[in-house]
Amino acid sequence: MKKPTILITNDDGINALGLKMLISVMREFGRIVVVAPDKQQSGKSHSITVGEILRVEKIIEEENYVEYVTNGTPVDCVKLGKKVVLEGNPDLVVSGINHGSNATINVLYSGTMAAAMEACIAGIPAIGFSLDDYSSNADFSQVKEVIKKIVREVLDNSLPVGTCLNVNIPAVSSNQIKGIRVCRQGRGYWNENFDSRLDPTHKPYYWMKGEFVDTDEDTDTDYWALKNNYVSV
Amino acid sequence: MKKPTILITNDDGINALGLKMLISVMREFGRIVVVAPDKQQSGKSHSITVGEILRVEKIIEEENYVEYVTNGTPVDCVKLGKKVVLEGNPDLVVSGINHGSNATINVLYSGTMAAAMEACIAGIPAIGFSLDDYSSNADFSQVKEVIKKIVREVLDNSLPVGTCLNVNIPAVSSNQIKGIRVCRQGRGYWNENFDSRLDPTHKPYYWMKGEFVDTDEDTDTDYWALKNNYVSV
Repeated sequence: MKKPTILITNDDGINALGLKMLISVMREFGRIVVVAPDKQQSGKSHSITVGEILRVEKIIEEENYVEYVTNGTPVDCVKLGKKVVLEGNPDLVVSGINHGSNATINVLYSGTMAAAMEACIAGIPAIGFSLDDYSSNADFSQVKEVIKKIVREVLDNSLPVGTCLNVNIPAVSSNQIKGIRVCRQGRGYWNENFDSRLDPTHKPYYWMKGEFVDTDEDTDTDYWALKNNYVSV
Repeated sequence: MKKPTILITNDDGINALGLKMLISVMREFGRIVVVAPDKQQSGKSHSITVGEILRVEKIIEEENYVEYVTNGTPVDCVKLGKKVVLEGNPDLVVSGINHGSNATINVLYSGTMAAAMEACIAGIPAIGFSLDDYSSNADFSQVKEVIKKIVREVLDNSLPVGTCLNVNIPAVSSNQIKGIRVCRQGRGYWNENFDSRLDPTHKPYYWMKGEFVDTDEDTDTDYWALKNNYVSV
C-alpha cells in the first residue's frame, strides 16, 4: 500500500515543541511534508498574506521527510503546501500540537484550527491538535497514544466532507486521561482587559489580556470534557 | 432622544476611501468613534494581536466625532474601541466600506466582517459593508442611500442576538441597483495559483493570486445577487 502524504503545520512556529512532537508521532504514518511559519502566529485566525510576498525555504530533506519554513500564516502554509511544495493535495493535513486549548470560542482566533479548516475547505481530511497548556515547554508526553489512535481512525475511514477535527488534550499525565469524547463546542467568550503602560518616552501602549468566561453549564461541551480530563473531539 | 454611539472600523486602513465614505454617511446618525488600523489589513480574518504591544492614538477630536488609529487588526479595533476608548459597548458597530466583495467564502478571510462578528459576539448590533470593487479609488457614490436605509433599520429595530449583517453593494451606479436582497452565503472557493519570481539575489518568492470558483448554481445566494445588481444582505 502506498504511504499517505501528510502535510504538517502549526501556528506556534517551526521551532515549537508541539510541532516537533507532532512530527515525531506522524512519521510512522507516511511521507511527511512540514510547512510551518518562521515565527509565532498565535491568534492569526484565518489570515492570509495579501499584498506582501511569501517565501518558502526547504530546510530539511530526508527519506520520506521534508521540512519547509515560510514567512506566511498557518493558512498560507496549507495553500503553499498544496500548490507550491506538493503541487497537489496531501492525503491528510495535521496542525499543531498547539500550546494551549482550542476549545470553545478559541477556534475563531486560532491559527492551528484555521489551517485545519483551510484544508477541510479544499476537501482534505484534517485534524488540529491542541494541548491545554500554554507554556512553551509544556509536557507533551501524554499525547502520543491519543494522536496515534485518532490519526489511524481518520486514515482508515477518512472524514465526512466539510468536517475536520478539533482535538484538545488535557495537560495531565496519560494515566489520568479518562478517554476521548466527541463534544459540541462550548459557549463562552474572552473578557479582555488591556494592561496599559507607558513606554520610555511616556507614550501609552497596551498588552491585550483577558479571561475566558464560560457561559455554558452543560456537560456535552469540549470545555467540560477538557476540565474533566477527557480528550475532546 | 440620546444620540447612539457608533464605532466605525475597517480593514483597508485609516486612509482608505471606503472608510471615509462610511464615516461621512454615519455622522448624521450619532456620536462617531473611529478606531481603524494604521495600514492595510485585508485578509487578516479574525486575527488578534498576541505577544506584541498595541498602540492607540487619537488623531481627530471634534463635536460628536473622534478618530483613533492603531497598529492592531480590525478585531483588535473593536476590542480596543470597547475597552480602551469607550470603556463600554457602543450602540452599533459598522465596518468598511471594504474595497472588494465579502460575499461567499470571502467572509472567512475578511477583516471587515471579522470586526462585525467580533462586535456581534459581544452582543453589539453590527454591520459590515463592502463594495464589489477592489480598486483603491473605487466609486462609492452609489452607496449612501443603501447604507442609510440599512443603518436606520438596524438602529430602529436592532438585530437578533448572534446575528450581524454582511452587506455587499454592486459596483454600479445607483440607478442600476435593483434592490436589496436577503441572501444565504453562496458556496465557492478560491483556487490559488502562486506567481513565482526570483529576487535580485536569485532567491524565489511568491505572490499569492487566485480565482474565485463559484460552485453554487442557485439564485438565492449573495454571489448571484451581486452579479445581478442587487445589494446582498
